[in-house]
Amino acid sequence: MKPFDNRPIGIFDSGLGGLTVAAALRRTLPGEAVAYLGDTARVPYGDKSVDSIIRFAHQDVEFMLSRGVKLIVAACNTVSAVALDSLKRDYPDEIILGMIDSGVRAVIDSGAERVAVIGTRATINSDAYRRGIHAVDRSIRVESIACPLLVPLAEEGITGGVIAREVFDTYLGRLRDDPPDALLLGCTHYPLFAAALADYFSGKVRILDSATACAAYTARFLEEQKMAARPDNTPSFGCFVTDLPGEFHRHATRFLGAPPGRVERISLT
Amino acid sequence: MKPFDNRPIGIFDSGLGGLTVAAALRRTLPGEAVAYLGDTARVPYGDKSVDSIIRFAHQDVEFMLSRGVKLIVAACNTVSAVALDSLKRDYPDEIILGMIDSGVRAVIDSGAERVAVIGTRATINSDAYRRGIHAVDRSIRVESIACPLLVPLAEEGITGGVIAREVFDTYLGRLRDDPPDALLLGCTHYPLFAAALADYFSGKVRILDSATACAAYTARFLEEQKMAARPDNTPSFGCFVTDLPGEFHRHATRFLGAPPGRVERISLT
Repeated sequence: MKPFDNRPIGIFDSGLGGLTVAAALRRTLPGEAVAYLGDTARVPYGDKSVDSIIRFAHQDVEFMLSRGVKLIVAACNTVSAVALDSLKRDYPDEIILGMIDSGVRAVIDSGAERVAVIGTRATINSDAYRRGIHAVDRSIRVESIACPLLVPLAEEGITGGVIAREVFDTYLGRLRDDPPDALLLGCTHYPLFAAALADYFSGKVRILDSATACAAYTARFLEEQKMAARPDNTPSFGCFVTDLPGEFHRHATRFLGAPPGRVERISLT
Repeated sequence: MKPFDNRPIGIFDSGLGGLTVAAALRRTLPGEAVAYLGDTARVPYGDKSVDSIIRFAHQDVEFMLSRGVKLIVAACNTVSAVALDSLKRDYPDEIILGMIDSGVRAVIDSGAERVAVIGTRATINSDAYRRGIHAVDRSIRVESIACPLLVPLAEEGITGGVIAREVFDTYLGRLRDDPPDALLLGCTHYPLFAAALADYFSGKVRILDSATACAAYTARFLEEQKMAARPDNTPSFGCFVTDLPGEFHRHATRFLGAPPGRVERISLT
């Protein structure tokens, strides 16, 4: 085993959301090179069928491998919830990390006895978070709620104010009078709502962010496996998208916290 | 030329929205058979690039032709706005109708001197409606406004109430104090907001629905070309989708005004 590995980390998502994971990774691991893929021609995945999501995810992984990455992060809770088992089975020699295990770990570490998990329709229908949490601790009460409008709201830049609050009310109104100990943001778009959600629950609910949790998990994994980049590595960040780069470029800064640099268009089909 | 033509009308869209056109067509032309295609694996088109939309639309047309249709309706304002010229050039022997000409006709017929056109980002960026209206009458004042959140709202069934009103305010607030004569709903999802929009403008703005306009235009075309089905034709309605039929089936009734019947999955790539 090499003591250092300067190859890039591959991160993929259906579109922009995974950039919140890339941002957290770059904060946690500033020396790592990152190759990011957003399948923007077919975004979003979250309302699509398990069958289609698995097919898209396989094509995403094939592309990441063609970039010579050392490990792959499926930075999309939907893919992680419905396609990760299939990916691990079909790529037994590759390291593919998802969002679920790290989110489950964040819930366990929080000490919450009752947690609400929010995500896309596909993520919630998969029941992956509840199963993951109960595999560790069956006593934790888990409520799972699909919030399909939050992704388009985040993409429109509406992450607070009256509209966000009314949409929270539609999905989470019943939790407000009887709040859980923690709320797990089970979608990479949702960190953009963290402040507004904390405010919505008057600070009474601990907000757990699966993007930050995933970055911490990946950092620990690289350290343990001695796969981190050399401390003097010059990190790079490359973005690949399946639709034209214009729209992606326009919105990426909001998700990444910095301009994305060069964005290249590629084809998966 | 045959006096009657019992072959089906082909209607395609990125997803559910075109069903509002299918519904209007079935009301106007109850004797016609219809084959409907929704490219639900890649929905939505409205935020994607011109390049991708043209590529998808060509695949949609190829499938429609494989079903032996007598004419094709691109029942998607986005496709009509950005890809129709390309489709007509590449399929010179086929009859392909779009949403723009009929919407323009509805504006002219309304006698409006000032009209607001709302649609997806791709439709509005194309400027197709303004160009179409000004090709007929340059004196009409046209304001074009992209309303990207209305499609996800309609798909979530939120077509009125506080959230819809606040979203209207975000996009159309400035029109409310100084209303135009007419508002053209330049997206097949928007007829679901017709009542709420009429109410938002306190009945002062005439709502023009491009789905109804397209159906009337198609009926007139079939009549003039002697391509209508025989009066004693037994009509059929077949739906084809590119993702699994489950979600489509669940929401289709809201758009079609009736259950869609059999929905078959097909592949375009």
